[in-house]
Amino acid sequence: MYNETCHQLGVKRNCIRELFEFGRQRAAVVGAENVFDYSLGNPSLPAPPEVNRAIHDILNEEDSLSVHGYTSNIGDYEARAAVARDLNQRFGTDARPEEIFLTCGAAPALIAVLRALAVEDGEVLAIAPYFTEYKPFAERSGLRFRLVPPDIPDFQIKLDAVEAMLTPHTQALILNSPNNPSGVVYTRKTLTELAALLERKEREYGHPIYILSDEPYRELAYGVEVPFIPCIYADTVVCYSYSKCLSIPGERLGYVYVPRRCADGEQLYWTVTGAARASGHICAPSIWQRVLVRCSKLTPDLQSYDRARTLLYESLKDMGYRCAKPDGAFYIFVEAPGGDAAAFSERAKKKDLLVVPGGDFGCASYFRLCYCIPYEKIERSLPLFRELMDECRAEGLV
Amino acid sequence: MYNETCHQLGVKRNCIRELFEFGRQRAAVVGAENVFDYSLGNPSLPAPPEVNRAIHDILNEEDSLSVHGYTSNIGDYEARAAVARDLNQRFGTDARPEEIFLTCGAAPALIAVLRALAVEDGEVLAIAPYFTEYKPFAERSGLRFRLVPPDIPDFQIKLDAVEAMLTPHTQALILNSPNNPSGVVYTRKTLTELAALLERKEREYGHPIYILSDEPYRELAYGVEVPFIPCIYADTVVCYSYSKCLSIPGERLGYVYVPRRCADGEQLYWTVTGAARASGHICAPSIWQRVLVRCSKLTPDLQSYDRARTLLYESLKDMGYRCAKPDGAFYIFVEAPGGDAAAFSERAKKKDLLVVPGGDFGCASYFRLCYCIPYEKIERSLPLFRELMDECRAEGLV
Repeated sequence: MYNETCHQLGVKRNCIRELFEFGRQRAAVVGAENVFDYSLGNPSLPAPPEVNRAIHDILNEEDSLSVHGYTSNIGDYEARAAVARDLNQRFGTDARPEEIFLTCGAAPALIAVLRALAVEDGEVLAIAPYFTEYKPFAERSGLRFRLVPPDIPDFQIKLDAVEAMLTPHTQALILNSPNNPSGVVYTRKTLTELAALLERKEREYGHPIYILSDEPYRELAYGVEVPFIPCIYADTVVCYSYSKCLSIPGERLGYVYVPRRCADGEQLYWTVTGAARASGHICAPSIWQRVLVRCSKLTPDLQSYDRARTLLYESLKDMGYRCAKPDGAFYIFVEAPGGDAAAFSERAKKKDLLVVPGGDFGCASYFRLCYCIPYEKIERSLPLFRELMDECRAEGLV
Repeated sequence: MYNETCHQLGVKRNCIRELFEFGRQRAAVVGAENVFDYSLGNPSLPAPPEVNRAIHDILNEEDSLSVHGYTSNIGDYEARAAVARDLNQRFGTDARPEEIFLTCGAAPALIAVLRALAVEDGEVLAIAPYFTEYKPFAERSGLRFRLVPPDIPDFQIKLDAVEAMLTPHTQALILNSPNNPSGVVYTRKTLTELAALLERKEREYGHPIYILSDEPYRELAYGVEVPFIPCIYADTVVCYSYSKCLSIPGERLGYVYVPRRCADGEQLYWTVTGAARASGHICAPSIWQRVLVRCSKLTPDLQSYDRARTLLYESLKDMGYRCAKPDGAFYIFVEAPGGDAAAFSERAKKKDLLVVPGGDFGCASYFRLCYCIPYEKIERSLPLFRELMDECRAEGLV
């Protein structure tokens, strides 16, 4: 007498969670220092000191009743204005506060947009490799979920595959760049060509095809441009989270940006807010909206991520591993020697080295490493990667 | 090409919001001090000083990366343990941390439970007068929403009406006590008789009928017992919010309590977490989970609410108004002279006195007053209530 789909979503442990639990059990046996857990995508940088200082100041300076009180469901005006101003300064856009809708993080933001676009027979495309929650999010929102195969080994976007999968029912295409799990940043060339394709198909079908740009890693890029997609394709809706850029993933602060110039822009904005309301959205946590007013311009200190990334990427390449070029986020996506990442992950587990096989991400021959772990641990894990490669070679897998 | 139901939910202003906007416009003309706005249910007490002190202390004493980091999706163990301990101390229950699921407030908690109970042809009952969001929450979750007529003038529960509306498809009955909008607390007698009815029907139908107890006002009662429903009826699931008891409505912290002894208790717990996952739940705001560990035992200082309640209730009674007995929450529900609350609300608006007609709450002959406004404003509004009663009398409405 309960909903079976929700039950499965509640009890089914995903692969990452299982690896994490395995790691905890092993840590109890061999010591935490001897388990090399590359599974969880948790920021390892603390929030910039300005964030905690802002909280102290808000509590000391502002009226407590207002600080913790309800804001407008779309978010406090000042906070939305800070987001718009920040976007305009970074990307030269003309974003306005009335185009911003503050949410409890990127996940409910995405779901609100998907629900807003859920019409009869509606479909949504995602590009492999992809963040696995997109599928339940889309399906529980009432959209058919379809996955575009990965563009191996560059992990850009196979435009011919996208074109073959577009139909008159396609409502949206989800993009995630810098990408989880590949760490790849879609280039301006990729995005411009994709935009041209979508514009052509919009004319052919006579209705908008939105890009739903999921950008939690937008500020985490290492020396490459992360093009801002609304500047390239008009019918783009952005979902953002402050989890990674401010290192506050537990605090649940994000937004949807629906430019008015989008097809049906104003109606879509309100439809997104209505979809959020039906999911129990009241407002984004109010003290965090005030932190945003004071801290929206902060950018993360990427040095420690970059150092970890460089060590791991260069070392793996030297050992003969093939990796997608990890220009952003905090992931490296690596081809499993022999092409079976599930088998490789099992093999690595025997050395207490935890890597996530890419099957659930839509790319079964690669595994994901999240390098948000201490630098010295990465150093100590390198011999294990070398042993694994040697074993695979000895078995003729490569 | 967007979802029309969500669009309507986004653009349709409810009556309360419209009154609030009207009040803001009038304030610009006649001055805020001359607008008497009883429309919005916002706490007017600031959070207890312990709350802000706890935040300062957490930031000063605890590891910043953990403070703002992801917690388990069900909530940090320590925070869930604090909730369970607090329930056990208040109500003599045997709640355990594994029965508690921390959420971003009561609204997503309710929706997660409704979605968890959404099976084919499933129905949910609510008792009028009721919190209007129950209807879109239930319908968007895939349940048929049915409203039990109000028990005028006591606003307890008409058991014969409940019995007539129960069917083999009834999955749950939503209760809200202390009640919004009536301020009434359901008595132990009412709840015991309701429990007996539901137990009989459970046996008849051969499946559970859950009580979904929505309790944001549980700690706001004035000298009467608020019976804890899980102690009266086993198949009770509790949704709670800290918005009112800690005066932190903007911060989004609440929980679901699914006792294991409920029918299918453990499965239902995980189904609720799965439903929340499909709505974008990641975790409750992490710093607030830590505040909960330090502050779960606080109770609100009800003196100022009680003083406002007594003044308003006694004065209105003296003028000849009939009110439901306002034993809890911060609302008074008043019969409109003549029985047409919408007309009465319009009449009151002409005096810049804003009261919410009860039609949307399922009781069109009553209007709601939220007395979270300054005491002196209540005092100055009393002559207006008297004038209105005199007018209604002169017109022969009473």
